[in-house]
Amino acid sequence: MKLSGGVEWALHCCVVLSRASAPVPSARLAELHGVSKTYLAKHLQALARAGLVRAAEGRDGGYALTREPAAITVLDVVEAIDGDQPAFRCTEIRQQGELALPPEECRVPCGIARVMAEAERSWRRSLAGTTIADLGASLDPARLDRVLGRG
Amino acid sequence: MKLSGGVEWALHCCVVLSRASAPVPSARLAELHGVSKTYLAKHLQALARAGLVRAAEGRDGGYALTREPAAITVLDVVEAIDGDQPAFRCTEIRQQGELALPPEECRVPCGIARVMAEAERSWRRSLAGTTIADLGASLDPARLDRVLGRG
Ligand code: FES
Ligand code: FES
Repeated sequence: MKLSGGVEWALHCCVVLSRASAPVPSARLAELHGVSKTYLAKHLQALARAGLVRAAEGRDGGYALTREPAAITVLDVVEAIDGDQPAFRCTEIRQQGELALPPEECRVPCGIARVMAEAERSWRRSLAGTTIADLGASLDPARLDRVLGRG
Repeated sequence: MKLSGGVEWALHCCVVLSRASAPVPSARLAELHGVSKTYLAKHLQALARAGLVRAAEGRDGGYALTREPAAITVLDVVEAIDGDQPAFRCTEIRQQGELALPPEECRVPCGIARVMAEAERSWRRSLAGTTIADLGASLDPARLDRVLGRG
């Protein structure tokens, strides 16, 4: 099982935006964490598509969160980057081969599919239990302003 | 996030072995669920490497579980097929770029890495809470014996 590498960057990026005193241009966001601008642009677009960040135009333009950091969960960011498809995908092999069950015995998901889905629900619930505001506490806004040349 | 497609087959296969009255040849296992023999061979080898199944030689040879179905969890099978690497891999981006933290402030994993790891622990805990014995109840051993021509 593997999550997209962009998840780490996107979460750190949302934390930065939650602590910034004004929108942050995407080139600056890339420099803050030493990632490539192309890499970053792709993930910022995914965050924007998911409605988590918005680009402000103009001289002081840049990216900002669209809502309170306390209203954005880790799960929101993970799903924006990695998608919300289940990790386990049942192909109904119980209906194939010599041991195949008739369709009328397959109206509810099989026990295996249910166990896999329940585990993913636990994972999602856990990620939904922490917000960007919870994570933001570790980043000092004064230090961020200084690094951004706004000190 | 995506799990290897082999997980579905491997779990169904372990359920079959838990309900079979004798070892099942790998070609028969493939036929039972209508999967290709090559595909199956690869996953049976992974299950054997993980110590969950063993091949018995001889005329009545075939695969069998190495221990009681109640002692094999869904997590055991998932990790045998998909590996036990974390889905989220922290690359320590907090130590990169303009916002980089000094190494001495990075002795414990960052808050983001901790939240991601905790969610994966929930997922694993959930998968470890169900055994092959629990899943086996849905497969009638008499029907299996009949399909295997042992009826
Ligand atoms: S048929 Fe897909 S998990 Fe059982
Ligand atoms: S440095 Fe890797 S998750 Fe924060």
